[in-house]
Amino acid sequence: MKRVPGPQRKRWQENFSEWFDWVLERAEVYDYGRYPVKGMGVWMPYGFQIRKRALDLIRNLLDSRGHEEVLFPLLIPDWMLAKESEHIRGFEDEVYWVTHGGLEPLDVKLALRPTSETPITYYESLWIQSYKQLPRRFYQVVSVFRYETKATRPMIRLREVTSFKEAHTVHETFEDAEKQVLEAIDIYKKFFDSLYIPYLVSKRPDWDKFAGALYTIAFDAIMPDGRTLQIGTVHNLGQNFTKAFGFRIQRSDETFDYPWQTSYGVSDRAVATIIATHGDDLGLVLPSTVAPYQVVIVPIQPSDKGKLYTVLDYARQVLEAAKGAGLRALLDDRSDLTPGEKYYLWDAKGVPIRIEIGLREASSKTVTLVRRVDLSKRVVKLEDLVNELQKTLHDLDNILYERAWRFLRERVLRTSSVEEAKKALDERGGVVELPWCGLEDCALKAAEQLNAKALGTPWPFEPAEGKCPVCGRPAVTYMRYARQY
Amino acid sequence: MKRVPGPQRKRWQENFSEWFDWVLERAEVYDYGRYPVKGMGVWMPYGFQIRKRALDLIRNLLDSRGHEEVLFPLLIPDWMLAKESEHIRGFEDEVYWVTHGGLEPLDVKLALRPTSETPITYYESLWIQSYKQLPRRFYQVVSVFRYETKATRPMIRLREVTSFKEAHTVHETFEDAEKQVLEAIDIYKKFFDSLYIPYLVSKRPDWDKFAGALYTIAFDAIMPDGRTLQIGTVHNLGQNFTKAFGFRIQRSDETFDYPWQTSYGVSDRAVATIIATHGDDLGLVLPSTVAPYQVVIVPIQPSDKGKLYTVLDYARQVLEAAKGAGLRALLDDRSDLTPGEKYYLWDAKGVPIRIEIGLREASSKTVTLVRRVDLSKRVVKLEDLVNELQKTLHDLDNILYERAWRFLRERVLRTSSVEEAKKALDERGGVVELPWCGLEDCALKAAEQLNAKALGTPWPFEPAEGKCPVCGRPAVTYMRYARQY
Repeated sequence: MKRVPGPQRKRWQENFSEWFDWVLERAEVYDYGRYPVKGMGVWMPYGFQIRKRALDLIRNLLDSRGHEEVLFPLLIPDWMLAKESEHIRGFEDEVYWVTHGGLEPLDVKLALRPTSETPITYYESLWIQSYKQLPRRFYQVVSVFRYETKATRPMIRLREVTSFKEAHTVHETFEDAEKQVLEAIDIYKKFFDSLYIPYLVSKRPDWDKFAGALYTIAFDAIMPDGRTLQIGTVHNLGQNFTKAFGFRIQRSDETFDYPWQTSYGVSDRAVATIIATHGDDLGLVLPSTVAPYQVVIVPIQPSDKGKLYTVLDYARQVLEAAKGAGLRALLDDRSDLTPGEKYYLWDAKGVPIRIEIGLREASSKTVTLVRRVDLSKRVVKLEDLVNELQKTLHDLDNILYERAWRFLRERVLRTSSVEEAKKALDERGGVVELPWCGLEDCALKAAEQLNAKALGTPWPFEPAEGKCPVCGRPAVTYMRYARQY
Repeated sequence: MKRVPGPQRKRWQENFSEWFDWVLERAEVYDYGRYPVKGMGVWMPYGFQIRKRALDLIRNLLDSRGHEEVLFPLLIPDWMLAKESEHIRGFEDEVYWVTHGGLEPLDVKLALRPTSETPITYYESLWIQSYKQLPRRFYQVVSVFRYETKATRPMIRLREVTSFKEAHTVHETFEDAEKQVLEAIDIYKKFFDSLYIPYLVSKRPDWDKFAGALYTIAFDAIMPDGRTLQIGTVHNLGQNFTKAFGFRIQRSDETFDYPWQTSYGVSDRAVATIIATHGDDLGLVLPSTVAPYQVVIVPIQPSDKGKLYTVLDYARQVLEAAKGAGLRALLDDRSDLTPGEKYYLWDAKGVPIRIEIGLREASSKTVTLVRRVDLSKRVVKLEDLVNELQKTLHDLDNILYERAWRFLRERVLRTSSVEEAKKALDERGGVVELPWCGLEDCALKAAEQLNAKALGTPWPFEPAEGKCPVCGRPAVTYMRYARQY
């Protein structure tokens, strides 16, 4: 297939925030900024279909690895949320409280769930008595609420996060919980891989872990403007919540002890990152895995209007062929839009392949395929159509994958010089890795000098040579720094 | 297939409330009554799968009839909820209010959505300017909240209704909205038919319609104890909400006017009614359409333990055959439960078909099929297995359908005598239909005499002969009365 330069990515990179707002509106993904409550928006029909396909991917992964979907209450009584003391300290400033039912004040204040460790541990303590019932792995897809005081952004920093997939697991031993952490990381890798989203996996610094966890492993993506976005987290919760809830089990050695837990989550940000990672100045560019339509067919009215039905009949034949092969295909036969207007529209919506059909194609039993990613064109025989469509989708996904990982790799710099690191962050953002002695103080000082945040250390662990650039002591590993969303 | 009497339905009918609580727990459907907030429960993994399949059925119906799935915010500012005056009057006593974010009081109180007419009309007014964009049909599946002061019941009367499917449509004309009401009724009929749930369709009395509607059409089921349960409603909203929101469109005649709306909803009660309608004293009896497993295979350990693997290998072969035919099948090969314990368990969970496999079956290449609905047994050759399974599922669904409709029909009495009607309600509940003159007063008086509630008039409209038994004036139609949940 002929390579052409393809659409620009200038606005996408230079004015990412504006571009992002524009594309959500233009492609009718998510209506944001018009609701009278800050930080809340609407998944419009087209966006909902993208979201649904992304959620289906993670659901299938979790289901195939022994997870059970459930649904727990939204409202959490104040005393339940406060059971684990670190947890409530982490969340109390950003919880929405329900205080009235009708005109009556409630006896007990109810929190809108910011996350569900507390109600889930409460029920686990009712359901599970013995190691024989373990492991259990639950998950739910729900709205969570945080009264964000930082500037809100559509899908990225919301007060209602509408697509929070939270998984919660229980294990007999610490070792089993550790294994589940690895399993969860592997699941998230496969999830982001299926969206062609590149990521860095870091162990968050101890001072930035989830409130109530032993430690947190996080996935970060790099946005077009070079800032990082946390897109997934995996927590080893230890026995913190099971102890807080007095949740004990009989172990295989017949002693009684508190079981061990993990939890892990992904959110709307996964969809935000699909959009941010693959888009360009024309709009969305969707991977085939989540595209509501993988193929859109645009008929071109012939100058001889009497031949319109020849074109339309042929277009319908092409549609049936594509659908018959299991592809999500749409024939856009609206008569009040020109083909050019339709191209513009479907390009903005990121449909991977456009098929143009005019009289020439109808007479020669061919179609013209246009790839969204680079707008390259190719004429294909009808008899080869299904194979070519499948191959082209596969190629497109590969192009997105390669391009995205190249973008990320170009923005990760390992250096021993704080100056060089700062220069890199100033010039193109991304992530810098500096040798680190392991002391919180040094990481915080470096972060301050870099005007960045300490993201954490590489996961899996990487030993470092050289010295901590802050204190001069021998480095243990690297600390990653970035300017974050 | 040999008919046997089948399990009793004594507790099911005589102590329905207790039976219902028992079956939810026993079959691990819904954990209720243990959460410290009244009226809220947990969808457990098995129940979640039933719920998911029921929701898939309604989603597919709506998608195939031009509806678009969306997701609107949970939180509604007080002034927005109050835009339509009848609406807020109907809901203000039962809305949960969020008043604080973190430790700060909010400037504007936020309601947890009791239903979404107001935010959806708000966005429709932003999205739709012209008749050319109509009709639009949106739906979402969300939690809704009502601060119920009546006694709460699992799935039936909740404070968090977790499976509310609400559809909202916009039309250019009153006639189009009327057509959509018919369409919605047809969709709900097909939905309940696919669950083998019998229903009565009534036009709710004007004094009991949805707050803000012109009129409400409702679906009622009859529970085992004879009380009715509202399981679906369809509202013609007229221009009430579009006027309240100043939402006008250009019409095809180039004038500007407020468009017309309908809304319709089903909820957790659909799942409650599957359970209530088909169950018996052993537990759930699930239609094949929503059963998480349609077939469970129980291997029976031979007295010669060396032959266990022969049985297990054969059982796995049977499992693959069933799965290969697209059936949801499970092999229960746990070694810590006896076959009898497994039968008891899966009977309670309502799996439509059990397959028993012992050494005899393995040697003769047969299986023993047991139908959940009547526990009748039959030996089937392996080569006929797939056909027999499919046929048996079909038969079972038909048995459930016939039995359920018979139960309902036996509990609907049309009479002109209030005494006879009262006797019927006292003896076996259900629904009575009395001739009605059309005056609210007469219906309320009759309802009081019957110690029942006026459900509404038959839909479609049925003219009545005779006189109103309350005032003696000529009857216009029938009024239905029932004791309701």
